[in-house]
Amino acid sequence: MPKLVFARHGESEWNLANLFTGWADVDLSENGTKQAIEAGKLIKEAGIEFDIAYTSVLKRAIKTTNLALEYSDQLWVPVVKSWRLNERHYGGLTGLNKADAAAKHGDEQVHIWRRSYDVLPPAMDHDDKYTAHGDRRYAGLEDSLIPDAENLKVTLERALPFWEDQIAPALKEGKNVFVGAHGNSIRALVKQIKKLSDDEIMDVEIPNFPPLVFEFDDNLNVQNEYYLAPKKA
Amino acid sequence: MPKLVFARHGESEWNLANLFTGWADVDLSENGTKQAIEAGKLIKEAGIEFDIAYTSVLKRAIKTTNLALEYSDQLWVPVVKSWRLNERHYGGLTGLNKADAAAKHGDEQVHIWRRSYDVLPPAMDHDDKYTAHGDRRYAGLEDSLIPDAENLKVTLERALPFWEDQIAPALKEGKNVFVGAHGNSIRALVKQIKKLSDDEIMDVEIPNFPPLVFEFDDNLNVQNEYYLAPKKA
Repeated sequence: MPKLVFARHGESEWNLANLFTGWADVDLSENGTKQAIEAGKLIKEAGIEFDIAYTSVLKRAIKTTNLALEYSDQLWVPVVKSWRLNERHYGGLTGLNKADAAAKHGDEQVHIWRRSYDVLPPAMDHDDKYTAHGDRRYAGLEDSLIPDAENLKVTLERALPFWEDQIAPALKEGKNVFVGAHGNSIRALVKQIKKLSDDEIMDVEIPNFPPLVFEFDDNLNVQNEYYLAPKKA
Repeated sequence: MPKLVFARHGESEWNLANLFTGWADVDLSENGTKQAIEAGKLIKEAGIEFDIAYTSVLKRAIKTTNLALEYSDQLWVPVVKSWRLNERHYGGLTGLNKADAAAKHGDEQVHIWRRSYDVLPPAMDHDDKYTAHGDRRYAGLEDSLIPDAENLKVTLERALPFWEDQIAPALKEGKNVFVGAHGNSIRALVKQIKKLSDDEIMDVEIPNFPPLVFEFDDNLNVQNEYYLAPKKA
């Protein structure tokens, strides 16, 4: 049975500071680096051998992927990086402390932006220091594809072609796949995989650690779903 | 002018112990990790922006590539890993201390194996602990492509298709290319790039640090060749 292992990136510097991150390219915290290494060790202990790995174009996910592959002794596995696996773009909230955002916009409004499936946060200005427009890593994209704010619905819409074109075909060929990505891009794919409703997915939280495993039959129906855990002594 | 930056991997644990390494998948030493980070900083200081990076399927080169990209703030650049950029396969000498090899085979013979263009070292047995046959990372290859020993001539012959199919076309498209590889696979490509004779290439040594830069015209004629160095204050 082909396996898909999701690793949300380890804790980032902005997770630690409680800032809205989105597409801002922040690094792993020291603890986040340890989580990624530990993820690799759990994968090794579980004996999971990957054929291919996918990640975003944001360094916290790429480093998590590289460390997980290194510490499971398979750093040679091909890694494909795509903006379609990026975190949800948090628009004008990017870089704001969650308390500051609540002070500025009101608790209830911020709660809606965080917890609703299809309400967009305020758009990021094109001259914002965190804008993706003009960033060399997105230079190959039509400018209209580069978001200024996303909800989970939009995140799913832009992640889905990558699932359909790359990840799902690899699994159907029987390959074991690693995806090192983000809380909301993983949620988007989990919604697709488990055929969850818009409401149901909002109750799913993806932790920074440990990795989440899906095992499939030949038609990509989920047979097993579990988090990796250390073997008992 | 498109640029090609070669980074031989930083010092490995076996460089340090003076062992023949070849395809054995040994890690960077602590100093080697520092060299890879420093390579990234020099690339950043030189303002070189890559479109694509190539490396081998050996962890010392992959880690060098990942660290060089990370510390030049372009970890998102696509990385393609190929066995064709692996180090020269050192056959039955793999894992031997250079002094032990000389004691076993004679100083002169070992010198010939190291310094001749087309003399093969003794073949590695298929049940050797370092054999590449049966290694999952080479599972997609015809078994006849997996070497049991290589000289520089053979290393060039198997690296050349990768140059012609991937690296040269990228440069011709005007892309800046990073290659994180090995002493002998880089030598093989340098022979091709500079049209050196079999004798001339044997006098070329590629250091673990710093990176070596080639700048080309549209027909891949070399316009400039230099090592990266810190800017003077």
